[in-house]
Amino acid sequence: MTTRRQFIVACSSGAVAMAHSLSAVAQGGAARGGAADTLVEDLVAGNRILAMEGVLDAMGHISVRHGTRPDRFLLARSMAPELVTAADILEYDLDGNAIDARDRTSYLERFIHSEIYRVRSDVRAVVHCHTASLIPFADSDVPLRAMYHMAAFVAEGVPVFDIRKAAGLTDLLVRDAALGKALAKSLGQKPAALMRGHGAVVVAASIPNVVGRSIYLDVNAKAQAQAIALGGKITYVEADEAKLRMSDTNEYSRAWDLWKRKVAR
Amino acid sequence: MTTRRQFIVACSSGAVAMAHSLSAVAQGGAARGGAADTLVEDLVAGNRILAMEGVLDAMGHISVRHGTRPDRFLLARSMAPELVTAADILEYDLDGNAIDARDRTSYLERFIHSEIYRVRSDVRAVVHCHTASLIPFADSDVPLRAMYHMAAFVAEGVPVFDIRKAAGLTDLLVRDAALGKALAKSLGQKPAALMRGHGAVVVAASIPNVVGRSIYLDVNAKAQAQAIALGGKITYVEADEAKLRMSDTNEYSRAWDLWKRKVAR
Amino acid sequence: MTTRRQFIVACSSGAVAMAHSLSAVAQGGAARGGAADTLVEDLVAGNRILAMEGVLDAMGHISVRHGTRPDRFLLARSMAPELVTAADILEYDLDGNAIDARDRTSYLERFIHSEIYRVRSDVRAVVHCHTASLIPFADSDVPLRAMYHMAAFVAEGVPVFDIRKAAGLTDLLVRDAALGKALAKSLGQKPAALMRGHGAVVVAASIPNVVGRSIYLDVNAKAQAQAIALGGKITYVEADEAKLRMSDTNEYSRAWDLWKRKVAR
Amino acid sequence: MTTRRQFIVACSSGAVAMAHSLSAVAQGGAARGGAADTLVEDLVAGNRILAMEGVLDAMGHISVRHGTRPDRFLLARSMAPELVTAADILEYDLDGNAIDARDRTSYLERFIHSEIYRVRSDVRAVVHCHTASLIPFADSDVPLRAMYHMAAFVAEGVPVFDIRKAAGLTDLLVRDAALGKALAKSLGQKPAALMRGHGAVVVAASIPNVVGRSIYLDVNAKAQAQAIALGGKITYVEADEAKLRMSDTNEYSRAWDLWKRKVAR
Repeated sequence: MTTRRQFIVACSSGAVAMAHSLSAVAQGGAARGGAADTLVEDLVAGNRILAMEGVLDAMGHISVRHGTRPDRFLLARSMAPELVTAADILEYDLDGNAIDARDRTSYLERFIHSEIYRVRSDVRAVVHCHTASLIPFADSDVPLRAMYHMAAFVAEGVPVFDIRKAAGLTDLLVRDAALGKALAKSLGQKPAALMRGHGAVVVAASIPNVVGRSIYLDVNAKAQAQAIALGGKITYVEADEAKLRMSDTNEYSRAWDLWKRKVAR
Repeated sequence: MTTRRQFIVACSSGAVAMAHSLSAVAQGGAARGGAADTLVEDLVAGNRILAMEGVLDAMGHISVRHGTRPDRFLLARSMAPELVTAADILEYDLDGNAIDARDRTSYLERFIHSEIYRVRSDVRAVVHCHTASLIPFADSDVPLRAMYHMAAFVAEGVPVFDIRKAAGLTDLLVRDAALGKALAKSLGQKPAALMRGHGAVVVAASIPNVVGRSIYLDVNAKAQAQAIALGGKITYVEADEAKLRMSDTNEYSRAWDLWKRKVAR
Repeated sequence: MTTRRQFIVACSSGAVAMAHSLSAVAQGGAARGGAADTLVEDLVAGNRILAMEGVLDAMGHISVRHGTRPDRFLLARSMAPELVTAADILEYDLDGNAIDARDRTSYLERFIHSEIYRVRSDVRAVVHCHTASLIPFADSDVPLRAMYHMAAFVAEGVPVFDIRKAAGLTDLLVRDAALGKALAKSLGQKPAALMRGHGAVVVAASIPNVVGRSIYLDVNAKAQAQAIALGGKITYVEADEAKLRMSDTNEYSRAWDLWKRKVAR
Repeated sequence: MTTRRQFIVACSSGAVAMAHSLSAVAQGGAARGGAADTLVEDLVAGNRILAMEGVLDAMGHISVRHGTRPDRFLLARSMAPELVTAADILEYDLDGNAIDARDRTSYLERFIHSEIYRVRSDVRAVVHCHTASLIPFADSDVPLRAMYHMAAFVAEGVPVFDIRKAAGLTDLLVRDAALGKALAKSLGQKPAALMRGHGAVVVAASIPNVVGRSIYLDVNAKAQAQAIALGGKITYVEADEAKLRMSDTNEYSRAWDLWKRKVAR
């Protein structure tokens, strides 16, 4: 069993880089208290897990709300998720401003995160992805439906955000707060939203849960597409079943432990 | 060629862990006799093979009936299958009680196993899985059919267990003996059953066979979905052909030898 | 660049095993002359390449006609292809009898090979496989068609062998010479035949070509299924185009060199 | 962080081979100036990235226009892309003649590159591939459409080149300048063209962009096929949205950095 400390060392490309990182985090978030290191560790792990599982490629990102300041969140600097180390984690306010960026550049689409944290106090972690299995549903009028208990949250509904309907002609990117607000409005109180011609956003109350939801949203989309292709009558997971299933708020904890061990290798 | 002894050493994450494990098994099952170690070894291998082949992810489980006490069975403690070592194997009675759990927690859905062992004296190994290729068929009214000799057992029929029809509103999990009995009743004398909104259960007379059936059920489901998508007339393996094929009770032995070597690396 | 000699050493699990093997081959086939070692090396490589590329799993086999005695062929003993070394190669006559088997067991379905070599003097290598992408076509009345130049040979036609029509009720296996003859008759002068409820047989004038055909038959089947699913009008490679393309009898040589290097690692 | 110099050493199979290579390049292209080494390095990386990502198998190729002589381009000798080192890069004129080939053989289809460079002054890099996901569209009358911002360039249109309509009966290969001119004419001012019964050609203003386009053309084709299979109404990325998105001419730079690091390992 690797300890959390050993884990983050393994994830970093070098001890020097990590020492720099923890120092940077300390400077940027002195008020976060004892859980800060754990949040950063889990955010690094979340980046690497989503890359390992094919949910993210070189693009996309995952963030977590600050442990003690709910008007702040943590997000990697602009880079490929599978290379993120603790030294790459920045702290942002809800206007999408980096607190102590120095020479580190920010993701253009950080407003996806900031505007969702602003209006969804229940949300503590956000993933933005372009997972290939989700694009067909994002561009189609066939809605995502829950195929099995591992993706029960899908039964709550996954709306589609069409940036053109919200904001007219764009380059499809959520590149400012106004577009982030429009996306957050489409998302409403749901666990995820598809983005037409772009990808998806997934939210949850913790890093393990947002990672689990992102991974099983991918599995669910593939399974639903296959079920439709069979041509028969499909019985989806019903809303009341899903609600009971989701009362288990640690539903992805066993998977999270496995994923963390795998990226730590 | 690795010996069985070398194999289990390779599978364990360390010799200390394994020594602890064999000791624990010995304490918990003194009556199992000389074949006990082989059963535990094969159960560990089965866990790792099903993970390697993508039949199981972090969830799902495989069990084997006790070698000398048919009212007992062996199953890992609650954990991801790909991490299971001999030290993690627990012994259960047919009410789903762990004999000597100490601080080790049990899978919530162990009743899938206990209730099938209770009513199916021919069954010596059980797999419960959520394999992605099976979910479309579990939710659809299109039945699984046997595509080729490697999955001939499918020709015996694979019923769908709908927990809602059996037990009304649930969180979809087989979390007690009553639900286990309902599932076992749906399974009847068949080699496998799909579980609506959940996954599948596969049974056989040995660990190699239940592993082989689980792997080729996955291949068969994908091939059948593809055949349906071709849009032509499909000729499935017929029941009498399948019966002849299944008279070879060691049909997966060559594959088993290969799989064991691969997880031992 | 690895030499052929280095390659076979890398493929063998040990030098002792290989020395034993070459000795066995020498004893069994003194009349084969200088090219014998190359044939054995390429046959070992072919086994491992087809496993690496997913054309064969633990089952299926590849053979080559003897270099100097056209009434003999070489085939591994009954084992998983990805584990085959030179020590495992046996020599057979056209009745499917092993010349010097000693304690090594034979594949049950060796008659697929023997009966094709008997009637197809142009054939010098044979693959029998259960590749998942081929099973939908083997069970369907939708014929395989050539999608692109890499699988031009498909344009010659790939008939389906239905063992039930040829021989009535069986366990689907080609377990004797009579069934082998029926399969060879279905194959006729074609480069491959599908086997209903079972898999396929692929033939060519050399090991590199039969390996290349087997690999690209798999790619072609997937691409054709996808093209059909698009729902539009499909223009397949036409017979006269394919004929011109197939005049290049070393079409897979660049791929063969790459594949051999990869299995030698 | 690996330096460019370290990277190319890692890519070469040996220092001796590389020294020979750089010497050969110097002899063949004294006029290229200081950026020549970077182009060669990136071309080697492009070969390996496209193999790693499954866009190229043993066949297909990638080229780049000469840094200072626009009437020249660089392309590997005839070999599998995943094995290419700097020593294998040759320089060609726009008639497809190698400048200093010595004993190194040329790809038969180098005319795909030469004739596109001749008529498309905006193009600085070309990929020719047989990616499996593209073949169904190459053979179908269903056009490729842009599914998401990562493949916005598809919205400009991807014509299909049917060699039979252009040149009558052939073996499907672009084996001379006349066929190359016909392909270049089909391509017109578009970013890519499919080739019926064969594959595709992709062009861009740089190596990172042509690699990125080739990889996301593959993802886009799979996603579009899946969207069609869902059976609903699809909203593709519209031309004006794509045009805005494509104003970012470094759209694949973050991915390129990741890919280079991965092939350098």
